[in-house]
Amino acid sequence: METKPTEISSSKMFGGYNKRYKHFSPTLGCSMTFHIYFPPSPSSPSHKFPVLYWLSGLTCSDENFIIKSGAQRAASNFGIALIAPDTSPRGLNVEGEADSWDFGVGAGFYLNATQDKWKNWRMYDYVVKELPALLAENFPQLDTSKASISGHSMGGHGALTIYLKNLDKYKSVSAFAPIVNPIKCPWGQKAFTNYLGENNAEWEEYDATCLVSKFNNVPSSILIDQGEDDKFLKDQLLPGNFHEACKKHNVPLLLRLHPGYDHSYYFISTFIDDHISHHAQALSL
Amino acid sequence: METKPTEISSSKMFGGYNKRYKHFSPTLGCSMTFHIYFPPSPSSPSHKFPVLYWLSGLTCSDENFIIKSGAQRAASNFGIALIAPDTSPRGLNVEGEADSWDFGVGAGFYLNATQDKWKNWRMYDYVVKELPALLAENFPQLDTSKASISGHSMGGHGALTIYLKNLDKYKSVSAFAPIVNPIKCPWGQKAFTNYLGENNAEWEEYDATCLVSKFNNVPSSILIDQGEDDKFLKDQLLPGNFHEACKKHNVPLLLRLHPGYDHSYYFISTFIDDHISHHAQALSL
Repeated sequence: METKPTEISSSKMFGGYNKRYKHFSPTLGCSMTFHIYFPPSPSSPSHKFPVLYWLSGLTCSDENFIIKSGAQRAASNFGIALIAPDTSPRGLNVEGEADSWDFGVGAGFYLNATQDKWKNWRMYDYVVKELPALLAENFPQLDTSKASISGHSMGGHGALTIYLKNLDKYKSVSAFAPIVNPIKCPWGQKAFTNYLGENNAEWEEYDATCLVSKFNNVPSSILIDQGEDDKFLKDQLLPGNFHEACKKHNVPLLLRLHPGYDHSYYFISTFIDDHISHHAQALSL
Repeated sequence: METKPTEISSSKMFGGYNKRYKHFSPTLGCSMTFHIYFPPSPSSPSHKFPVLYWLSGLTCSDENFIIKSGAQRAASNFGIALIAPDTSPRGLNVEGEADSWDFGVGAGFYLNATQDKWKNWRMYDYVVKELPALLAENFPQLDTSKASISGHSMGGHGALTIYLKNLDKYKSVSAFAPIVNPIKCPWGQKAFTNYLGENNAEWEEYDATCLVSKFNNVPSSILIDQGEDDKFLKDQLLPGNFHEACKKHNVPLLLRLHPGYDHSYYFISTFIDDHISHHAQALSL
């Protein structure tokens, strides 16, 4: 069980490289893959790239963002490394883990499960602790002390909650069509009931709309893009709830609503440059 | 059997729309899908967009380019509609059609087969005749008299051969990692033997390197991008042969070799803007 990451693929893009790695994760108890996009090599060999974590949505792996977003163009320009982890443990063969597309495999919800059956589902610790330590140890060209975080849908939920609970670890956050109030929507209720049981105080620890009232000393503005033709907008995403909570607690939020756009990567790729630029500013590039 | 195209999906991107259509193709004798990317609506309702055909490579459908290339950004800026057809007939259940990834389904090679078994494989006529007529009839917002053509690998072969044989129909051509001399490489020899039989004169009609000697009054420069770390470069793609032929027959060619790049869409997305810009110039935008 190799905890050091092994490179399993490499492709040049916009002067840098998409590289995919495999490693054994002690946190999750299984093998995991992740992608890094390394910007073009800088002139100084001691230069270190700041990092932007991207958390993907339901059903995704570490590949979707790398294949579909086109984020590498701006990441190359700004000199930001992109880190794309997978969305859940895989290959553990927990009974029922692949029965639905919105729970289990591909649907880790970036939390630490407390229910015994799902004890390996610890994507919060994997993203916040294991992965940054692994990067710091194995990739001297990355400066993991300069980090920001972003994501889509379930991954937008992950980015917002992880950011709000770790304001010391991330310089900025942004999200596309995030699940901002999971305790109030069917996706979140299903996942939280199974992963966390019936303890409601626990649920609120993983709900961005609840967290803004607890961690409201947010230094940099939160950027959220949302398509108005997103079929999940009204039942699952509920950006209005987060908007209200931010207003109430003086948390700076830029919520942009885009007529005609849906929930897909076509929407993400249209506005990803603005997000990279938002993070570049916070990372002082 | 509906020959008129029916819209089966629509997603907004860079202000315009990716739309997928299905129709029955009399040329191929089966149902076909294709994608159009429509740039943002112009201020004048009578405005018509010029079109750029994109021909995809082995194993691809009409989706790969739309999902992975990021070409919509520049197409949106320049106001060019992108037309992405599929790469072969599908669903005909010809014996052996799906036995290999480089022949049959997903591998039409943009020719008209002469061998009875593959009589439905008429992608040349589909791309050059049926599809433009269908677009002209059903999409008044397109100006199919202003057309250019591009493609990747097998689709680069398709773009170059179709352009050289129809200099009156297309304003410009470009290609990524094209199969420029199929009669001299294993992919081409396998396909041509099966689709065209042993008649070598017929083979030369679908070989870009042979065609430049016949149709050498090329008005606009041919643009080809090729990655130097492309694993198919030496055995299958043979750009040097085309380069020599162009030089000999005074055909203007810009062949750019890119160190480190492979055969993937990561390579395409890195340089696609240059291609869109090349075609925009020829289309006088």
